[in-house]
Amino acid sequence: MGRKPPSKKVKVHFEPDNVDIIAEQGENLLEAATNAGVDINASCGGAGVCGTCKVLIKKGEVESTRTEKVSQEEYEQGVRQACQSRIIIDLVVDIPVASRLETAILVQEAKMPSGIERAEAIATGWGFNPPLSKLFVALPPPTSKDNVSDLTRLLRSIKQRYHLSNISVDFDALRKLPRVLRKKDWQVTVTTLVTAAKTKTVRRKPLIINIEPGNTGKKHFSLAFDIGTTGVRGQLLDLNRGNVIAEGIAYNGQISYGADVITRIAYSQKPGGLRKLQQAVVSTINQIIDELLAQSRCDVEHIGHIIAAGNTTMTHILLGIDPKYIRLAPYTPTASFIPPVKARSLGIRVGKHVHLFAFPSVASYVGGDIVSGILGAGVHQRETLTFYMDIGTNGEIVIGNSDWMVTAACSAGPAFEGGGVKHGMIATAGAIEDFGINPSSFEPIINTIGGTKPKGICGSGLINITAGLLEAGVIGQNGRFDTHLPTKRIREGGDGYEYVLAWAAETQIGKDIVITEIDIDNLIRAKAAMYAGCQTLTKSVGITCSDLEQVIIAGAFGSHIDIEKSITIGLLPDIPRDRFIFIGNGSLLGARLTSFSIDLLDDARKVALMMTNFELSVDGNFMSNYTASLFLPHPNAEEFPTVYKRLGKLQKNKR
Amino acid sequence: MGRKPPSKKVKVHFEPDNVDIIAEQGENLLEAATNAGVDINASCGGAGVCGTCKVLIKKGEVESTRTEKVSQEEYEQGVRQACQSRIIIDLVVDIPVASRLETAILVQEAKMPSGIERAEAIATGWGFNPPLSKLFVALPPPTSKDNVSDLTRLLRSIKQRYHLSNISVDFDALRKLPRVLRKKDWQVTVTTLVTAAKTKTVRRKPLIINIEPGNTGKKHFSLAFDIGTTGVRGQLLDLNRGNVIAEGIAYNGQISYGADVITRIAYSQKPGGLRKLQQAVVSTINQIIDELLAQSRCDVEHIGHIIAAGNTTMTHILLGIDPKYIRLAPYTPTASFIPPVKARSLGIRVGKHVHLFAFPSVASYVGGDIVSGILGAGVHQRETLTFYMDIGTNGEIVIGNSDWMVTAACSAGPAFEGGGVKHGMIATAGAIEDFGINPSSFEPIINTIGGTKPKGICGSGLINITAGLLEAGVIGQNGRFDTHLPTKRIREGGDGYEYVLAWAAETQIGKDIVITEIDIDNLIRAKAAMYAGCQTLTKSVGITCSDLEQVIIAGAFGSHIDIEKSITIGLLPDIPRDRFIFIGNGSLLGARLTSFSIDLLDDARKVALMMTNFELSVDGNFMSNYTASLFLPHPNAEEFPTVYKRLGKLQKNKR
Repeated sequence: MGRKPPSKKVKVHFEPDNVDIIAEQGENLLEAATNAGVDINASCGGAGVCGTCKVLIKKGEVESTRTEKVSQEEYEQGVRQACQSRIIIDLVVDIPVASRLETAILVQEAKMPSGIERAEAIATGWGFNPPLSKLFVALPPPTSKDNVSDLTRLLRSIKQRYHLSNISVDFDALRKLPRVLRKKDWQVTVTTLVTAAKTKTVRRKPLIINIEPGNTGKKHFSLAFDIGTTGVRGQLLDLNRGNVIAEGIAYNGQISYGADVITRIAYSQKPGGLRKLQQAVVSTINQIIDELLAQSRCDVEHIGHIIAAGNTTMTHILLGIDPKYIRLAPYTPTASFIPPVKARSLGIRVGKHVHLFAFPSVASYVGGDIVSGILGAGVHQRETLTFYMDIGTNGEIVIGNSDWMVTAACSAGPAFEGGGVKHGMIATAGAIEDFGINPSSFEPIINTIGGTKPKGICGSGLINITAGLLEAGVIGQNGRFDTHLPTKRIREGGDGYEYVLAWAAETQIGKDIVITEIDIDNLIRAKAAMYAGCQTLTKSVGITCSDLEQVIIAGAFGSHIDIEKSITIGLLPDIPRDRFIFIGNGSLLGARLTSFSIDLLDDARKVALMMTNFELSVDGNFMSNYTASLFLPHPNAEEFPTVYKRLGKLQKNKR
Repeated sequence: MGRKPPSKKVKVHFEPDNVDIIAEQGENLLEAATNAGVDINASCGGAGVCGTCKVLIKKGEVESTRTEKVSQEEYEQGVRQACQSRIIIDLVVDIPVASRLETAILVQEAKMPSGIERAEAIATGWGFNPPLSKLFVALPPPTSKDNVSDLTRLLRSIKQRYHLSNISVDFDALRKLPRVLRKKDWQVTVTTLVTAAKTKTVRRKPLIINIEPGNTGKKHFSLAFDIGTTGVRGQLLDLNRGNVIAEGIAYNGQISYGADVITRIAYSQKPGGLRKLQQAVVSTINQIIDELLAQSRCDVEHIGHIIAAGNTTMTHILLGIDPKYIRLAPYTPTASFIPPVKARSLGIRVGKHVHLFAFPSVASYVGGDIVSGILGAGVHQRETLTFYMDIGTNGEIVIGNSDWMVTAACSAGPAFEGGGVKHGMIATAGAIEDFGINPSSFEPIINTIGGTKPKGICGSGLINITAGLLEAGVIGQNGRFDTHLPTKRIREGGDGYEYVLAWAAETQIGKDIVITEIDIDNLIRAKAAMYAGCQTLTKSVGITCSDLEQVIIAGAFGSHIDIEKSITIGLLPDIPRDRFIFIGNGSLLGARLTSFSIDLLDDARKVALMMTNFELSVDGNFMSNYTASLFLPHPNAEEFPTVYKRLGKLQKNKR
């Protein structure tokens, strides 16, 4: 087949980043920029209809038709839609803030959860620069005057086009090279991965992990995972646009081997136990991947990377590393920083080239999930004295700011994720999440995730139900039901007294959905562990809860946590409500943002290194704080002034 | 079990390298130095009997008994045997040149071959610093105050003890870590490998590839291989002492798929062909490893590294990389620089942690074997205008010095390795290597490798026999026998006329061993290709053969090449004999030396990059030079004055 004569090259200078690229005359401005790694937001994918890719041509001129997205005034100033512009001569182009991809992502992130403003608790300042890149290169075919090796030819072109040297190549990718190069006339897309954080002594060294014929740059996806003890959550990310295109959640298949990390570790010590646990979580991951692919109609071969955050035990087991010493004093994990590993070698059904990066951990009970959450929330970037709590099975808390951080694990138990709760479930469709109660008839008003018939209760539902029952006087300070109330909803069941949230006919499961005294007991113990942890950790750094300038709540238990109700039951401290921010699944947030920015990969290392672990179990105060917290509300009225004031009012109204 | 209280630390400063180490009071000076990577020669392994580890204590004093190896006068000057000295206080120690390990190795290298002084053609100036290291570390066990991860603990101790940071860890090694650390009371030996050459932008980054319980530092071996088209040669190396402890050779199992690289590449294109060829050479390598282990009684698990040098095709096939385009114009290999690969993944039967490093190549027909040879011979280190020739199936030649190098492949064919020769064989026991002939009776005098009964003829034997027959007038300038001579040794056989070198009864094979006219024809073509290559390449850089200041001859065809006879048949140019140096298997030499020194790993990269490939096939002169060389001796008497003078004399004597 004939080759076109080489086109004329022109130079485009982008401001404010001061990046120069060489483009071909006639090339589309948006494509040229994207190919060269200069990111311009283009929500519609370059169709010309969204107007998000507007740029200012400061010097030179492009061939461009004005659409309705550019006003006459803007047009005269030199504003053009990058996707509608052809490059003719050398240019100086300014990319306004509104067209920068990073901004686009922040806006999306901030819009996601339930109305609470989250943008102020998300890491900022990072450039959109995923650790996984796709580079399209058209190589000059070899001649007898220029017959260097295929690899040298490829690296030379990458260097010329993208100014990248210091690249290494994965052996499996190398083996494909001669065939792939010749398949589409020496045009290939190279996938590179930066696997290690930049340190003072180590420069970033991209690794070529895949080579595909032709230009596959548009198919550029990755996965972010939160590997929880109870539930596993995954997102499929589009690395061109910086957005989530599908989400999935499933129970961690390890649940049948034990509810918490301690029993899992015990199981791992049986013959073949570690292998079984590993296979169980990998099978859960594969199930979620299948779901994400089905939702998005994306092809598995276009997934190029996985970033996973999980607690230390989950991370060890996923990678097949023996977690034995995590539960034996003095509680040492095998590794906090783990090199990336090929996902296929763990049994994850993705392309041979896909690496899995596991977030670094701090200690045996302060894992990659908390590092990921702190990172995603940007706690390490601000001077604000922040209290970060990840409300889940392990219950990890952090106090600190950009200068210092202390952290502790509270061992809350699985109640917040629906574990140890009769009708408990993870926060997925059908879970009762919101609850109200008629103060006279004691009839419930329930809301479920997805608005379907109820199936069970998720962690946030459990909090809201318990607080509602307490406020209505259905349960007392010890969590026991007032069995004298005139309602059929309170009755004696197989596990002691219970309250019927939904009658069998109203449910998906064909059985009454109830909350039992045992469920409430489990929640009391869980919230007591979190609050006692908070008291102990604040005291250890010489402050009190009221000194906290910001409280960031993360958790996988549902996205509708009610701050007021959480304070009522004594889970959160009674401080001004505007200091609370709920960010949802922090672990997944950090994993997602790191998939979008290599800067955060560097930060993850810094965050893990700057955290000081505080062992609550060796502090005498923790046990007494815990015991004192085993009531609803917390018995110390001085620490919970607004709760006592309100509950007093409620009692008065009732009388 | 109880642990000793920590000993007092003292500082030892070594000159002339200006290295400081921290040792424990009471520690053995030789061991402390070795553990810290300061190399002192100790031929007897520290038994005190060889006296090679003498050092000068310049400041401070050691506890040491004088043995007969240290004279009273030396003792008074402060000379001590490092192996007999205990460190008590801070020291300044001078390591004299005679005790430096590098010197010890050079002397060994120089001693090896057949009397010709080789030391002047071996790379110098490198420190003994193998890319594979074993580091013994005793870790402080974890406590509740210090419960960092096992990996962090290990890296911290390595940093303290060996001043090494910037270390990464292989995932398989990481998985073993918790078990191994606790097996011998937190004492472990870590094996590190430097896999990449240092460049301007890339620092060396050791990779932890293995962890063993206790101190296994004494068992520290690696393998060097020359992967030839015809034969494969391997050496087992002791990385503590820098010496060869066993050697093995075998035919490349690929021979049954074709005699030269072109037929091998053709075979690789059949379905399953590449896989079969790879398995064939791997099986040969495994066979040699078994032999080396049997010879040395070394355990396979103590082998930690493999360095292999081979031509471009052999390297591609060994690694399972498609060599297709090597034989199609414009002859591009897949890669010249190939990342190290785990040997087990290729099917080589060594430990899971062992990496194979393949020498970089220059072009499709200028491979890692020639780069290795140039490196081992130190051609790149000297200003001397050097001609390097690797006489083998491919016949590669290089002209250059420390400033520039040009190289070409002559495609000599397999005759130099016994291929295409009726009784040809590789240079192993039973091969006829040396030959003399009675000028009156025409009876032969033969010498075989190993002094056994003859089995066949190796490449150097073929040269010597042909030259001998020529000088005695048994064959003429066209390589045909003078059938009128009065001897039964010349007769007509199945392949035309032949000369009987040994009667059946005198051989190991129970058949007459003969040299045929076809054999001589093959040798003539092979030597013509080499010499024409030499003429063409010298001319291309504007010099003549007589300008060459040094001629280094490498080859796997046997270690007794006779320079005079090689000039007689027109293989080597007729220049002063003191310019010739024979270094044996240059490819294996470079692989071995690089196993001993990381400096040479860096140099290998430089050498491969500085070589300019010259395609003989596209130079019109080559074909005419080749055709003109197809006679014995070379027909141009002016180019071979001493040969014509001597042959003239011989003819005169006969008359």
